[in-house]
Amino acid sequence: MKIVEVAPRDGLQNEKSAVPTAEKIAFVDALGKTGVAEIEITSFVSPRWVPQLSDAEDVFAGITRSPGVVYSALVPNEKGMDRAEASGADKISVFTAASQTFNRFNINATTEESIERFRPVIRRSTVPVRGYVSTAIWCPYEERVAPRAVLDVMERLVDLGVNELSIADTVGKASPDEVRRLLDVILPCDVPVALHFHDTYGMAVANAFTAWGEYGIDTFDSSAGALGGCPYATGATGNIATEDLVFALTASGVQTGVDLDAVVEAAKVIEPYLGRSIGSHLGMVKRGAPPDGDGGRGTGRPT
Amino acid sequence: MKIVEVAPRDGLQNEKSAVPTAEKIAFVDALGKTGVAEIEITSFVSPRWVPQLSDAEDVFAGITRSPGVVYSALVPNEKGMDRAEASGADKISVFTAASQTFNRFNINATTEESIERFRPVIRRSTVPVRGYVSTAIWCPYEERVAPRAVLDVMERLVDLGVNELSIADTVGKASPDEVRRLLDVILPCDVPVALHFHDTYGMAVANAFTAWGEYGIDTFDSSAGALGGCPYATGATGNIATEDLVFALTASGVQTGVDLDAVVEAAKVIEPYLGRSIGSHLGMVKRGAPPDGDGGRGTGRPT
Repeated sequence: MKIVEVAPRDGLQNEKSAVPTAEKIAFVDALGKTGVAEIEITSFVSPRWVPQLSDAEDVFAGITRSPGVVYSALVPNEKGMDRAEASGADKISVFTAASQTFNRFNINATTEESIERFRPVIRRSTVPVRGYVSTAIWCPYEERVAPRAVLDVMERLVDLGVNELSIADTVGKASPDEVRRLLDVILPCDVPVALHFHDTYGMAVANAFTAWGEYGIDTFDSSAGALGGCPYATGATGNIATEDLVFALTASGVQTGVDLDAVVEAAKVIEPYLGRSIGSHLGMVKRGAPPDGDGGRGTGRPT
Repeated sequence: MKIVEVAPRDGLQNEKSAVPTAEKIAFVDALGKTGVAEIEITSFVSPRWVPQLSDAEDVFAGITRSPGVVYSALVPNEKGMDRAEASGADKISVFTAASQTFNRFNINATTEESIERFRPVIRRSTVPVRGYVSTAIWCPYEERVAPRAVLDVMERLVDLGVNELSIADTVGKASPDEVRRLLDVILPCDVPVALHFHDTYGMAVANAFTAWGEYGIDTFDSSAGALGGCPYATGATGNIATEDLVFALTASGVQTGVDLDAVVEAAKVIEPYLGRSIGSHLGMVKRGAPPDGDGGRGTGRPT
């Protein structure tokens, strides 16, 4: 099982507070020691669009790389790709959505236009390219998204030459049954497929079990400390927490190679900038457990 | 699918703030209109042990019953049973745990002693009796609990004459794999079996899907607004939220008959007394969604 840690990019771009570059570097360095296979550490998007990640070059220049860990970055276009490659990104990610309306609002392009923008990026890239297909099950504007629409976008990206795909439930509203309906249509695929779940409605772990247990999906994106929140509902849960996903998988006998305590500790680097506590279940348990571990005995509180 | 709403009892006994009796009555009355099959509305335990529920008689006297809804109460002994029956409880619940250590700390009795206390209760009860078996997978003191130990307690309760059982992951740490190991041992059972999941580690929904999808379990306990918290870790999640469980099941095609909006509204009656916001995913989504429903367009926040 491979965990792709997305907190420094997908997490921080959705947090309101600005995190100093030095703390981002410390965060990425801590994540590099957790055992995750890959970390998407920033986005080479225009600072006008995502000011939180305007220090992308500085983050890449400042980190200490852990051997074997892939350090990737999101790029929106050729200019972003040039910046990412100059910064030494091991992999780049391109982004589109299965929903036309979402693309129009989010990146001001039709899905076709967004894919055409990637053509030179994918052709010229000297590093592997990951293709994100977001709003793969629900769209905040169009409601349900047809699995065939997702398949269509995936096939175009594969034709352009992406090396892998990450299929995202951006809204975080998918149920296991809807995940099955999607995977029944989009699998098998000519390139490896990762899934990227948000936990907005509390079903992300159930969805991961469905995808892994029934379809053999072995790569999941997740965010340490559940960093990121939900851009569609203030205060709601966003990305599935790395530590919660790994805890659940480990408890079911899956080897992830990820050190849970190290993930929770890594998230603490960012906690002071969140304006709230770490949002993962495991983070809450570790923070709230009585120091003597006696578990609240004698509380008369059954079940 | 039958939902047993436990927020007024299992939820409120774990909340620190005192809720006025009138608000409890309003809460139960609101829950009675949500479509849940049954509501455990209080506990006839000594006020010395659970002061939050010392108004059990007044709550029963004050509620307006919805036709078809079962109003039940937890009772610890014959005295509690007499109070419950005098109050007009439609069903009573008795409580023990599969873990000896948990019973010792929680109710100051061995498991055998706790079961013996129920013998006259079950024999004399004029209403159906539900038997809780808590710490069925993990114990806060003993770690893993053997499925055979759970089966042993279940068989004794069935021998004494309980009409149904509710098997609880009290710690909220069970994984779907552990749920399977338990159900493989304890099913089939001579009386109906409900499951009672806590969401401490974020796996409750996944566990419910496993129990329903693979084993046909069709009754789950849950708590409106995720009321209750976790007695073993301050701030951590406790009971699975009724609205999150129902949302997940409904999205997978299960008919529960429960009105999601009505559950969220019911929980709001209690929210002012929590010292925090409603803890369910759905409650957070509904609270945080932008009023114009535009979903944060143009945020440049992919995946």
